[in-house]
Amino acid sequence: MTGTGKKLRYGMVGGGLSSYIGDVHRHAAQMDDLAELCAGCFSRRFEASLETAEAWGVDRTRVYHDYKEMADAESAREDGIDFVSIMTPNSSHFEIAKYFMERGIHILCDKPLTLNLDQALALQQIAQDKGILVGVTYGYTGYPVIRQAREMIRQGTIGDIIHVRVQHPEDWVIESTGDAPEEDLPWRFRPEVVGEALCTGDLGTHAEQLLVQFTGLRIRRVLAMLDTYPTWLPLETNTTVLLDLGEGRTGDLWASQIAMGKTCSPAIYVIGTKGSLEWDHTQPDILRYTPRGGATQLLEAGKGYMTPQSDRLNRVSAGHHEGFYEAFGNIYRSYAQVLLARKEGREPEDWTFPDIRDGVDGMRFVHACVESHKKGNVWVEL
Amino acid sequence: MTGTGKKLRYGMVGGGLSSYIGDVHRHAAQMDDLAELCAGCFSRRFEASLETAEAWGVDRTRVYHDYKEMADAESAREDGIDFVSIMTPNSSHFEIAKYFMERGIHILCDKPLTLNLDQALALQQIAQDKGILVGVTYGYTGYPVIRQAREMIRQGTIGDIIHVRVQHPEDWVIESTGDAPEEDLPWRFRPEVVGEALCTGDLGTHAEQLLVQFTGLRIRRVLAMLDTYPTWLPLETNTTVLLDLGEGRTGDLWASQIAMGKTCSPAIYVIGTKGSLEWDHTQPDILRYTPRGGATQLLEAGKGYMTPQSDRLNRVSAGHHEGFYEAFGNIYRSYAQVLLARKEGREPEDWTFPDIRDGVDGMRFVHACVESHKKGNVWVEL
Amino acid sequence: MTGTGKKLRYGMVGGGLSSYIGDVHRHAAQMDDLAELCAGCFSRRFEASLETAEAWGVDRTRVYHDYKEMADAESAREDGIDFVSIMTPNSSHFEIAKYFMERGIHILCDKPLTLNLDQALALQQIAQDKGILVGVTYGYTGYPVIRQAREMIRQGTIGDIIHVRVQHPEDWVIESTGDAPEEDLPWRFRPEVVGEALCTGDLGTHAEQLLVQFTGLRIRRVLAMLDTYPTWLPLETNTTVLLDLGEGRTGDLWASQIAMGKTCSPAIYVIGTKGSLEWDHTQPDILRYTPRGGATQLLEAGKGYMTPQSDRLNRVSAGHHEGFYEAFGNIYRSYAQVLLARKEGREPEDWTFPDIRDGVDGMRFVHACVESHKKGNVWVEL
Amino acid sequence: MTGTGKKLRYGMVGGGLSSYIGDVHRHAAQMDDLAELCAGCFSRRFEASLETAEAWGVDRTRVYHDYKEMADAESAREDGIDFVSIMTPNSSHFEIAKYFMERGIHILCDKPLTLNLDQALALQQIAQDKGILVGVTYGYTGYPVIRQAREMIRQGTIGDIIHVRVQHPEDWVIESTGDAPEEDLPWRFRPEVVGEALCTGDLGTHAEQLLVQFTGLRIRRVLAMLDTYPTWLPLETNTTVLLDLGEGRTGDLWASQIAMGKTCSPAIYVIGTKGSLEWDHTQPDILRYTPRGGATQLLEAGKGYMTPQSDRLNRVSAGHHEGFYEAFGNIYRSYAQVLLARKEGREPEDWTFPDIRDGVDGMRFVHACVESHKKGNVWVEL
Repeated sequence: MTGTGKKLRYGMVGGGLSSYIGDVHRHAAQMDDLAELCAGCFSRRFEASLETAEAWGVDRTRVYHDYKEMADAESAREDGIDFVSIMTPNSSHFEIAKYFMERGIHILCDKPLTLNLDQALALQQIAQDKGILVGVTYGYTGYPVIRQAREMIRQGTIGDIIHVRVQHPEDWVIESTGDAPEEDLPWRFRPEVVGEALCTGDLGTHAEQLLVQFTGLRIRRVLAMLDTYPTWLPLETNTTVLLDLGEGRTGDLWASQIAMGKTCSPAIYVIGTKGSLEWDHTQPDILRYTPRGGATQLLEAGKGYMTPQSDRLNRVSAGHHEGFYEAFGNIYRSYAQVLLARKEGREPEDWTFPDIRDGVDGMRFVHACVESHKKGNVWVEL
Repeated sequence: MTGTGKKLRYGMVGGGLSSYIGDVHRHAAQMDDLAELCAGCFSRRFEASLETAEAWGVDRTRVYHDYKEMADAESAREDGIDFVSIMTPNSSHFEIAKYFMERGIHILCDKPLTLNLDQALALQQIAQDKGILVGVTYGYTGYPVIRQAREMIRQGTIGDIIHVRVQHPEDWVIESTGDAPEEDLPWRFRPEVVGEALCTGDLGTHAEQLLVQFTGLRIRRVLAMLDTYPTWLPLETNTTVLLDLGEGRTGDLWASQIAMGKTCSPAIYVIGTKGSLEWDHTQPDILRYTPRGGATQLLEAGKGYMTPQSDRLNRVSAGHHEGFYEAFGNIYRSYAQVLLARKEGREPEDWTFPDIRDGVDGMRFVHACVESHKKGNVWVEL
Repeated sequence: MTGTGKKLRYGMVGGGLSSYIGDVHRHAAQMDDLAELCAGCFSRRFEASLETAEAWGVDRTRVYHDYKEMADAESAREDGIDFVSIMTPNSSHFEIAKYFMERGIHILCDKPLTLNLDQALALQQIAQDKGILVGVTYGYTGYPVIRQAREMIRQGTIGDIIHVRVQHPEDWVIESTGDAPEEDLPWRFRPEVVGEALCTGDLGTHAEQLLVQFTGLRIRRVLAMLDTYPTWLPLETNTTVLLDLGEGRTGDLWASQIAMGKTCSPAIYVIGTKGSLEWDHTQPDILRYTPRGGATQLLEAGKGYMTPQSDRLNRVSAGHHEGFYEAFGNIYRSYAQVLLARKEGREPEDWTFPDIRDGVDGMRFVHACVESHKKGNVWVEL
Repeated sequence: MTGTGKKLRYGMVGGGLSSYIGDVHRHAAQMDDLAELCAGCFSRRFEASLETAEAWGVDRTRVYHDYKEMADAESAREDGIDFVSIMTPNSSHFEIAKYFMERGIHILCDKPLTLNLDQALALQQIAQDKGILVGVTYGYTGYPVIRQAREMIRQGTIGDIIHVRVQHPEDWVIESTGDAPEEDLPWRFRPEVVGEALCTGDLGTHAEQLLVQFTGLRIRRVLAMLDTYPTWLPLETNTTVLLDLGEGRTGDLWASQIAMGKTCSPAIYVIGTKGSLEWDHTQPDILRYTPRGGATQLLEAGKGYMTPQSDRLNRVSAGHHEGFYEAFGNIYRSYAQVLLARKEGREPEDWTFPDIRDGVDGMRFVHACVESHKKGNVWVEL
């Protein structure tokens, strides 16, 4: 299969058979045949890793006991992996990413990038020093109409941005916990595993990246309010943030893990001087565009009137929904295309995946929100 | 028509033929035959007032040159008006309301109640001293499902409230102004006419009252961010507010006059410990209820499973939409029913109209938001 | 009140205090001050009629024991009523309408116009012979965006119509009956009261008129399938009809009284050679327009880009919903305006109410559907 | 990769690199690692087939010049393919399927199964005689909530079915053709390629299968009306059908290729004696359930309250959309699981893919619709 010379080789750390996100990554990578899974350390248990490898057709000689063994071996092989996908709990992202990067292996890492900002900055330094391509899999940003919005904004269709409202509500914490403390705090809620914030890191960063990818803007300052329910949890589950987007632009960001009725509902609404754009994950292939003075239009992924930047990410004909796998696949595709271009000394056609800057900005965002809240809800620079 | 003895007599200040809101008030009052229009000073121009009176069948002997003449004359008549509806620009609410109240005439006044908090507090004092019934016509709160929500919350259906998100976006300012200054600042945008805030008073108070009527909660503190576009306007057109609702409850309020694509879209979403409730003005007779762990239900005004508190406000059979007139009519109905009960020494069956406390709280809210913004977006108590 | 000379005088047969539809009529008539309620026979019980008259301010000397007495007396008065609104059960429409019409009194009648086609044709003959203006209150056709659609189609915006799908599903029969026969067949289900069809007359005619008013087309032939559930009912509760709209145009019409989940959901979708239009009663002020090759646009009542034909029917500013009362009011307004114009020898500005032809066509439609079904679902001309 | 012994081996006829549907099939097959692509005749041009094979990692020794060579060779190999996926134009389905089936190779075929009913019946005979497992890829039936509906109906949740409305509107023909004849009739519209019907076979069968898979019912008789626009086309583009579903149950089916504004919108609504169910492809993971007398509930794929039959088909956590690929993948999964079970002499856990009976019924449906229309819209048995 690798004889074609067209594909990249990649490995996985984490994501074994029992993992939900492992499957998402693997399908995303398969989708465009740009990367072949060649190596892995899929689990802490070697036996589980071997089973995964067998199920997925990975040569057992390239199944490793731990990530260090894997990075050492793969970086030494001539046909070693080009990049590694990291899908372990947040707390281990840093050490794993660092180890691979230092050995010259590119990385594609789950979000949030690290446990804290210092770690993220350290990775950014390594990436710069060693020329490592870092991608961060903010899956929701892969939908074609997100690119449509970005391109329309770039072309000035809605004029200058005035105000942005972005959100990422879910219900998983309130639906999976009781009102009274559980005997043992589940690992998913432990600060040492998830970092200094829970909802802000888990979902707030999704909203933050959605804003970045949709508008092209960056958050300059935040003023955050963090709420915790169930009250026995050590970290917040509901995050509300006022945003300073620079040059007088403002915004509002909301992320929640207790939003019953909003299973997984990232959404964004952008007001410009000449019109507005709105996207809601409940209908992920529709972009609402309202020109100043005109009727709202429902722009639909795959239709003839969409921009090439959006069409490029569309896999099915208009009206045939693309889901989370396909959006995730678009992150993989762009990452792989940029990596291939780089290997071949070409300029990539497009660059639509969240990269090291986005990964670092996510951690800046989380840290600034926590600081803002601790200080009594004051403005904090990112 | 008045022979029945069942009706109240009322008068109007403002709202003449060319006025949009006058028509809304008059229809709202007609809807339940609880109040008959008997007197008025519909316009600054007496001729216009006479025309209006003729069109609406008001005896021309009870058409007045100004509100003082009207209050003096009507309070002196044995068959004088029971209450006056005030629908002039905000800046004159106070003096008119005060003059009528001091002469023992009850008032039903457009929102916001006054130009500033001091005026509102002064009216509250008079109301208390003289036993005047004050109603404030926050029209959107009159929809039957708002009462359904209030009752479900009272009964504990969604447990204790954790977080509330409320909004009132419109597009009228950006759709009716240009990007460059107009030669003469239209009166609608003048601080001396609208008060210390534009969007916050015009729409923010609608959102604030929606929160109050829907949840039964009161806002304790605000942290507000006010934006102005078009930039040549003297006052803000987009308001974002963090809310402290007491006892650990929080919220987020957004009002906007530049929200293209959201013509008139008040909406509210409330998270409780046992479920959530959501209402959106785009489908005003639907209430979304999600019990913790269960599927979202679409509760529909007029259906057999609704509470009596909601049904009482329903005029048409389920599925036949009720619009703004009917919602406004419900404010009038409750006001008139309470006034009738008071006249007859009875306890009113229900009390679902925003009253003097709500009017004052609206002004507290506006003032606190302006203070918060001026001081650099800090928490300010109401 | 009548001194202005601007208003028409009208009376009511049926619609007393306990009646739901009486209130709708009265508010609709009040809405534009074009007609004053001056006389009535509101109930079979004279006492109930008197009570209604008192509540509504109708002079008790013009309250009548039966419709004949009323027609005789009112036609003899110089200040007699200009028109009578008839809101009795279907079975009495004919005799009442005929009696008034023969005495020169114009009529506005609930739908369906009569119990059968012969009666409708007889009324049409009288209307022609005596110059009587007949209106039929198909309330849903009064929404402003219905006129927007009609005008866009007239202007050729969607080209030539190819296919139309129209429906009027409700749930009232299945929600208000049991699966087993009731001891006494309620009057609402008796053929001698409702005619040869139940659902087809009750809701099918609403859908038929919606098609007529929206598109301007007429149904030429039908092929109908009638279903009955609960099975113990004597007449059908679910009607499906293939439509021949002439010149190769086709359509599909569905009406149902057992459509749980669709409380009251008339809707229409029209395909033309250059685009499509769609309206759904669940959001009555939105018209969906899709130009061939372009994005779907959400046209909203009251917005600046709407046609004058739509705007004329709009009472509130865009985004402030108008409900069933207002739609009904638009039927009254147009009827009154045409009648006033006729009295003054003018051409009316507009004619947007369903008239005698529409009333007759409704009965043709019902009759043809019943015939079609009886003959084994064959095409039957209207 | 095949060393695991867990996978099936399959080949493809058609679906080469330039084909849209080839990609859908391949991803669908990859999704669960149940079948490996081992052989193919991807194009009429051998060079194109070789390119496809190289891109997809298929051994070039198993790339064939034509389907006969492929069937002969693969059926002779010990490690030959277990099944072949057929994704050529409709007109060649029969000969290809027949040839493989006669050589003992199972088939998974695009819909509609054949060019006409006779061919379908012939395949059914072979399937029976030779024990061949036939699957037909009606992709939309693979969504998890379709199974939820089927199971709820099986359990009696909505009682006995009374009436069904199903549709599959698209806009592709009117959006991709002009109003005047094209010089050469494109192959997609040629009767010799698509059969005796265009829209009915292309989309009508999708709607027919949606009805079958959602309800478990079969269509007994049809009464069809076929319309053609653009008028220069040789076959119909808009199909309306009255349905006899047996035992007094009725229905209405609509399929259209000219439905502007409805890009790809299969939908179904089912009325039972105890409630209703509704599904609409615009939000494919939501099932609307209305119990008689109760509020409409929005059942969401992946939520804890869903049935195991639905959950089994769910790949991502609730709220993370699954699109057309995943739905298609569910067809593949069920087909592969049944085939594996059969090979291992086990009963399959589930059987959720459309099979030979469904394929034949689709052709019966098309044929009956054409007959019905030709005879003047009369009832025709399937």
